[in-house]
Amino acid sequence: MSSPWFTSEKTDINPILSSRIRLARNLRKYPFQQKLNAPNAAYMVQEMQEAISIFHKLDMQNLSEAEQKVFLEKHIISPEFIRGLLPRGLLISDDQNLSVMLNEADHIRIQSMQAGDALSDALTAANRLDDLIEERMEYAFHHEYGYLTACPTNTGTGLRASYMIHLPFLERTDQFKSLLPIISKFGITLRGIYGEGTESMGGIYQISNQTTMGKTEEEIIQVLQNMTIKVMEHEAQARDKMLGTHRADQENMVYRAYGVLAYSRKITAKEAMDLLSEVRLGYLYGLLDKPKPVKQIYQIMMEIQPGHLQRIAGREMDELDRDYARAEYLREIFK
Amino acid sequence: MSSPWFTSEKTDINPILSSRIRLARNLRKYPFQQKLNAPNAAYMVQEMQEAISIFHKLDMQNLSEAEQKVFLEKHIISPEFIRGLLPRGLLISDDQNLSVMLNEADHIRIQSMQAGDALSDALTAANRLDDLIEERMEYAFHHEYGYLTACPTNTGTGLRASYMIHLPFLERTDQFKSLLPIISKFGITLRGIYGEGTESMGGIYQISNQTTMGKTEEEIIQVLQNMTIKVMEHEAQARDKMLGTHRADQENMVYRAYGVLAYSRKITAKEAMDLLSEVRLGYLYGLLDKPKPVKQIYQIMMEIQPGHLQRIAGREMDELDRDYARAEYLREIFK
Repeated sequence: MSSPWFTSEKTDINPILSSRIRLARNLRKYPFQQKLNAPNAAYMVQEMQEAISIFHKLDMQNLSEAEQKVFLEKHIISPEFIRGLLPRGLLISDDQNLSVMLNEADHIRIQSMQAGDALSDALTAANRLDDLIEERMEYAFHHEYGYLTACPTNTGTGLRASYMIHLPFLERTDQFKSLLPIISKFGITLRGIYGEGTESMGGIYQISNQTTMGKTEEEIIQVLQNMTIKVMEHEAQARDKMLGTHRADQENMVYRAYGVLAYSRKITAKEAMDLLSEVRLGYLYGLLDKPKPVKQIYQIMMEIQPGHLQRIAGREMDELDRDYARAEYLREIFK
Repeated sequence: MSSPWFTSEKTDINPILSSRIRLARNLRKYPFQQKLNAPNAAYMVQEMQEAISIFHKLDMQNLSEAEQKVFLEKHIISPEFIRGLLPRGLLISDDQNLSVMLNEADHIRIQSMQAGDALSDALTAANRLDDLIEERMEYAFHHEYGYLTACPTNTGTGLRASYMIHLPFLERTDQFKSLLPIISKFGITLRGIYGEGTESMGGIYQISNQTTMGKTEEEIIQVLQNMTIKVMEHEAQARDKMLGTHRADQENMVYRAYGVLAYSRKITAKEAMDLLSEVRLGYLYGLLDKPKPVKQIYQIMMEIQPGHLQRIAGREMDELDRDYARAEYLREIFK
C-alpha cells in the first residue's frame, strides 16, 4: 500500500503539488439524480458499496460535520456533496488516493489523486477503477454522446483533470489576471482553493478543464498540460525576476514568515496559508536555512484547516478557538 | 563611577524609562548667541572647557556626522546643536549622565540624565554642576527675572524637566489625543521621541514643562510630576483593560513581535521600535516566556538608531544597509 498522496514529499519539490482525475458516471438502471427518490438513492449507494467491496464504505449521513470537513479539506469530497439531500455514500481506498462519491451531482464520481506532477498515473488508476465498476454495473452510455451525466457539461468523457499548483510569484504580478481569459479560451480555468472564485490562500490554485464533450481524454489532458506549462512559465519568469533582483527581499519575507509561524499565539487560516506559502518557497529555493519539518508544507496547509484542527483536538471549536489551536499546532512544527 | 543611565535595568522596570533635567545658562561677559561672533564663541567654549576640566571635552566641528548622531540618539545633544553655525563644544562626564552643550541656543545647556523615575536625583546632579560652574564663571542673572536666556520662554529658572515614558497602551486609545490639551493647560507637553510632533516610535514619549518663568524649580517639577501621574493613570487603565479582557491578544502581539525580531533580515527603525515596544511589555507584564536579553530594551531601542548602527559597523551606511544591519543586530540579541 502506498502512502496517501498528501503526505508525499513530491508535494514539496515542484510548483505542481498534486494531480487529480475525476470521472462522472451514472448507472443505467437508476433515474438521474434530479429524478431519483431517497429509497432508490439509498439502494444505489448500498449496491455500489457491495460491488466495490475492497474500499472503505462511509455513509455521509453518519459522518460528523468535522469528519465531513476533513474530507472536504483533502479535496476528497465537494461542498455540493456535503449539502446534498439524498442518501450519499463514499468509497475510499486505504491510501485515500482513490475515492468514489455516490450521489454527488451524478450517481458516481470517481476521484484519483497523486502527489506532484502525475496526471497520467492518476488517470491510469481512475480508469482501472472505472473498468472494475463497469464489469459489475451498467453505465448510462450513448454511442454518440459518450457517458451521460446529470449536467450536460460533463457528458462525453465525464472527465475533469486538474493540478493543484503553487503560484506565489505569479499572483503578485499584473500578468496574472490577464492570463485567465487566455487559458479560458482553451476551456481551462484557474481558481483558488479553499476560497471563492480566483481568491486564493497561500498562492495555491487549481487549474482544470471546464468542458469534456467533443474531446477525447487524451485531448483534454493535453490541453490542460499545455496551459499548465504556459502558466508555470509565467510563474518561473516572475520567480526569476524576484529572486534575481529582489532575492534579499524575498529572503526577508521567508524568514519573517518563519518567525511568525514559530511564535504566534493566534493565527487565521488565511494568514497561516500565506506564511506557509513563503516558507515553502524558502525551502524550495534555498532561501531558508532551517531544518525542514517532517511534514510536507502542503500537508501542513491542509492540517491547519478547520476540520483537521477539530479532528486533532477531538472536539468542535469556534473560529477563535481554532485560531489559537492553529498557532499552537504551527509552533510545535516550527519551534 | 556609575554606569550610563541608558544601560541601567531601571529603564526596563517602569513606564518611566528615564528622567532628565536641563538648565539653560548664559555668561555675563559674552554677548548672547544672536550677537556672538565666531572668535568669541570659540573663546567661550575654550574657557568653559578649561573651567570644567573634570569632563571630557569635545568640539562639535571635530565630530563625524555618525558620532554626532550617536549623541543625538542618546538625547545628549539636540538637532539644533548639530545644525549650529558657531563653534560649539560638548562637555561630558565619564558615565554620560551629565553633559553641557556650549553654544546651543544658550551659552550653556546643562543636562542631567537618570535611568527610571529619578527626577530629583537628576536635579541634584544638575544643581551641583551648576554651582561648580557658578563658582568659576559669572552667569547672566537678573534679580527679578532670574537666569537670562536667549529665548524668553526659558528665562527664570532656565529649567526644563522631562521624563521619557512608555505609553504603548494609552497611545492606542481615543483618550490619548484628548489628554494633550488638558496637560497643555498646565504648561506640560507630550511628544514622541525620534519623531515629529506627537508622532512616536515604539510608544515612547517625552513629557516636559514648556514654560519656566514665574515658577520655582520645585513648582515646575511638581506640576510635571502631577501631570505625569495623570498620564500614567490613563496608561494603567488602558493597560488593565487590555490585559484584563484581551490578554491573549496582547500575548499574541508580543510573541509575534519577538518572532519577527528574531527572524527578519531587513527592518526599519520605526517597525523595530514598535516591535521592541511589544517585547518590553512582554517582559514587564509576564507575557513573554523567553530569557531577557542582557541589554535593556530601551538601550536596544537606542542602538538600532542610524548613528549607533553606523558606529557598530564602523562605517557610513545608507538606509537600506542600515535596515539589514539593524535586522542582523536584533537577530543576534533575540536568537
